[in-house]
Amino acid sequence: MFVSDCLGVNGAGRLTIGGLDAVELGSRYATPLYVMDEDEIRANCRAFLRGMKIHREGRGAVAYASKAFCCKRMCRIAAEEGLWLDVASGGELHTALEAGFPSGRIIFHGNNKTAADLTLALEAEVGRIVVDNIFELGLLDHLAKAAGKTACIQLRIKPGVEAHTHEYIRTGGVDSKFGFSLESGEAMKAVVKALGRQSLCLKGLHCHIGSQIFGTEAFRAAASVMTELFARVKRETGYAIPELNLGGGFGIRYLPEQEPAGYESCIEAISRAIAESCRALNISEPFLMVEPGRSIVGPAGITLYTIGAVKEIPGVRTYLTVDGGMADNPRYALYKSEYHMLLAARALAPPTGAYTVAGRCCESGDLLGVNIALPRPAVGEMLAVLATGAYNYSMASNYNRLPRPAVVMVGGGGSYLAVRRESFEDVARFDV
Amino acid sequence: MFVSDCLGVNGAGRLTIGGLDAVELGSRYATPLYVMDEDEIRANCRAFLRGMKIHREGRGAVAYASKAFCCKRMCRIAAEEGLWLDVASGGELHTALEAGFPSGRIIFHGNNKTAADLTLALEAEVGRIVVDNIFELGLLDHLAKAAGKTACIQLRIKPGVEAHTHEYIRTGGVDSKFGFSLESGEAMKAVVKALGRQSLCLKGLHCHIGSQIFGTEAFRAAASVMTELFARVKRETGYAIPELNLGGGFGIRYLPEQEPAGYESCIEAISRAIAESCRALNISEPFLMVEPGRSIVGPAGITLYTIGAVKEIPGVRTYLTVDGGMADNPRYALYKSEYHMLLAARALAPPTGAYTVAGRCCESGDLLGVNIALPRPAVGEMLAVLATGAYNYSMASNYNRLPRPAVVMVGGGGSYLAVRRESFEDVARFDV
Repeated sequence: MFVSDCLGVNGAGRLTIGGLDAVELGSRYATPLYVMDEDEIRANCRAFLRGMKIHREGRGAVAYASKAFCCKRMCRIAAEEGLWLDVASGGELHTALEAGFPSGRIIFHGNNKTAADLTLALEAEVGRIVVDNIFELGLLDHLAKAAGKTACIQLRIKPGVEAHTHEYIRTGGVDSKFGFSLESGEAMKAVVKALGRQSLCLKGLHCHIGSQIFGTEAFRAAASVMTELFARVKRETGYAIPELNLGGGFGIRYLPEQEPAGYESCIEAISRAIAESCRALNISEPFLMVEPGRSIVGPAGITLYTIGAVKEIPGVRTYLTVDGGMADNPRYALYKSEYHMLLAARALAPPTGAYTVAGRCCESGDLLGVNIALPRPAVGEMLAVLATGAYNYSMASNYNRLPRPAVVMVGGGGSYLAVRRESFEDVARFDV
Repeated sequence: MFVSDCLGVNGAGRLTIGGLDAVELGSRYATPLYVMDEDEIRANCRAFLRGMKIHREGRGAVAYASKAFCCKRMCRIAAEEGLWLDVASGGELHTALEAGFPSGRIIFHGNNKTAADLTLALEAEVGRIVVDNIFELGLLDHLAKAAGKTACIQLRIKPGVEAHTHEYIRTGGVDSKFGFSLESGEAMKAVVKALGRQSLCLKGLHCHIGSQIFGTEAFRAAASVMTELFARVKRETGYAIPELNLGGGFGIRYLPEQEPAGYESCIEAISRAIAESCRALNISEPFLMVEPGRSIVGPAGITLYTIGAVKEIPGVRTYLTVDGGMADNPRYALYKSEYHMLLAARALAPPTGAYTVAGRCCESGDLLGVNIALPRPAVGEMLAVLATGAYNYSMASNYNRLPRPAVVMVGGGGSYLAVRRESFEDVARFDV
């Protein structure tokens, strides 16, 4: 209910996640606290995999985009579910390897990989390196040659399709820091260059058209543009590129009224677009990869805070301050992101007012939301912010030297620590 | 030169900080790297102290607002210079105490202090606790009583004066999450309440009118409004509040064309306003406190990056990507903050184009600036971003599991590590 299948309300009227009482979790592990439902995470993985099984007859793979939420436990869950893993830095790669993630299923991303990053990726023999630009193509070839290895690569293409939640645009030159542009001829040149390098094996082409996309139209458009490029490469070089990686961007429900397309439907629509396009172009269908991040973990997480003060400014607004804020969730400060919130102990109590939820950082911009409909909260009550599983812990800072909260996982009726809470000592431990 | 006194150019045409070659520092300690000039930090401390000495005949104190840049080394510098220290959390307090900062000169801030925070502050016997709201007033009195202590407090007041870089506004009800509002009578009520609590000793009234303020008018207006409140308290209760804390907000030069008022001039203007106002109100002048943060450390810091790619999108823009970004400096992503940048090895080379400086995070919004005038950069060159001493390291995250850079201090012709660089192991160490 609310925004996610893993949430509910128990007999005491309290919010539950994975069937466990949120107030009890917050009391046991202390607030602020991230709580994530392992079963919901696994169900989301399986929805994508089911789509691949049914609509692609298995000719597809799902890679979890770990930037959304990266820790060893999450890497292990992705590994157990049979997913691939998209990492965007040496730090994410290190985490995955430490967690025992099979390196052959790791896809290494980034618009500015350093020589150190690429060396690490080559040493680990990651499955794919997604090459972003021409400098990196040369650098990787050089490093692979020196190491006596062949790097399996995909090229990141700017397809000229950009999605905006409910619509998409086709532009000539997409203004993005990522990838090779299609319409300038840069993409085709990079393909030719990659094919000519002995230490590189061109496995696929990659694109990513946006974030938090609700419909399937933009994905279909991207699939169609990309398959045209596959056909052109076949025509001009004779090489049939084996893999099409359409990236991520599958939308999730942050607010109850939002209606994102189901994950399985997305795969179905993409599969149909690829099939139609390849038939028309008279080429064989490439292996399909997608890289969901937010859609795997976002709906599975909530954040629990304790309310410290309620401050009414007559005629202006009422502030409600919590024991966390932009340090553990910078998404409102960064993007004005909206979240559904409720009082954990009175999850079904009807709202009686609109509140501005402020964090505890010494900064006016430290807000978690404005005009949040809630029953009148009491100081000491617990506030739950829903669908915080993605881009919360992963973007958290120690601003004001606030220790980052713990991440607790619930699953199978129990709970356990996935990431432990930082102490004051931890925050100061790099100080000389 | 450029935006700060600590910067220069050496015979080889390279940027220097504290007289040291920035390219050599970047090579020795690796990039991305924060570099800060200890002598510049001390000079900024002394400019404020000189203002207090000359224009207040010593009847004033300067507290460093550690949220701008908090680490043990910085706390020690502030202690050695005779400053007070403004901390905004238990984590900042812990750092200060570990650094040996005298607790009697610590001012404890925050709009949502928890019982644990207040207990820590009472145990440490910090000099002042700035009480933000009525819930906290009660909680602190209760905790102090239980501990058999008296808490020396200041009350945070919303003075109805708000500064915006070049101008200020006087509003009836300032829309802020911080403090007691003046015009609603809340402030006066809080004063009366505080005076009636046996475990609280009301030492002063505090206000903070904004950030990055260039002129002195807004400070003068705040001083005048606040002294009127002092007079009113004296009239209605007979109590002469001893201290006026005007907070921080003193502007710095981020761009060469900016002209902030000198720190000493700010203190002079404030002192004159207090003197005039107190004379007119027929009250004795309170002890003055100010809390500069950005103005102490901001101009003293630079960030060094290595350029990884230059990507021209014909007719749109040219991206230049660096090995850091929003993870080590989220200020452009958060506020569209502007910085002056230059190529460290060719500091005086005339700009030949405009560049969009992109970070390495897997996110389109990860930019450090747009339309930055630079000579055409080569891949592998070092980019220097100036005036990053404040709110960069302190707001840094591990987004994409990027380890946070080291902070190197220069001073007296040498350099040393103030905060060590994180490793991949450090980033993953809280994972279970």
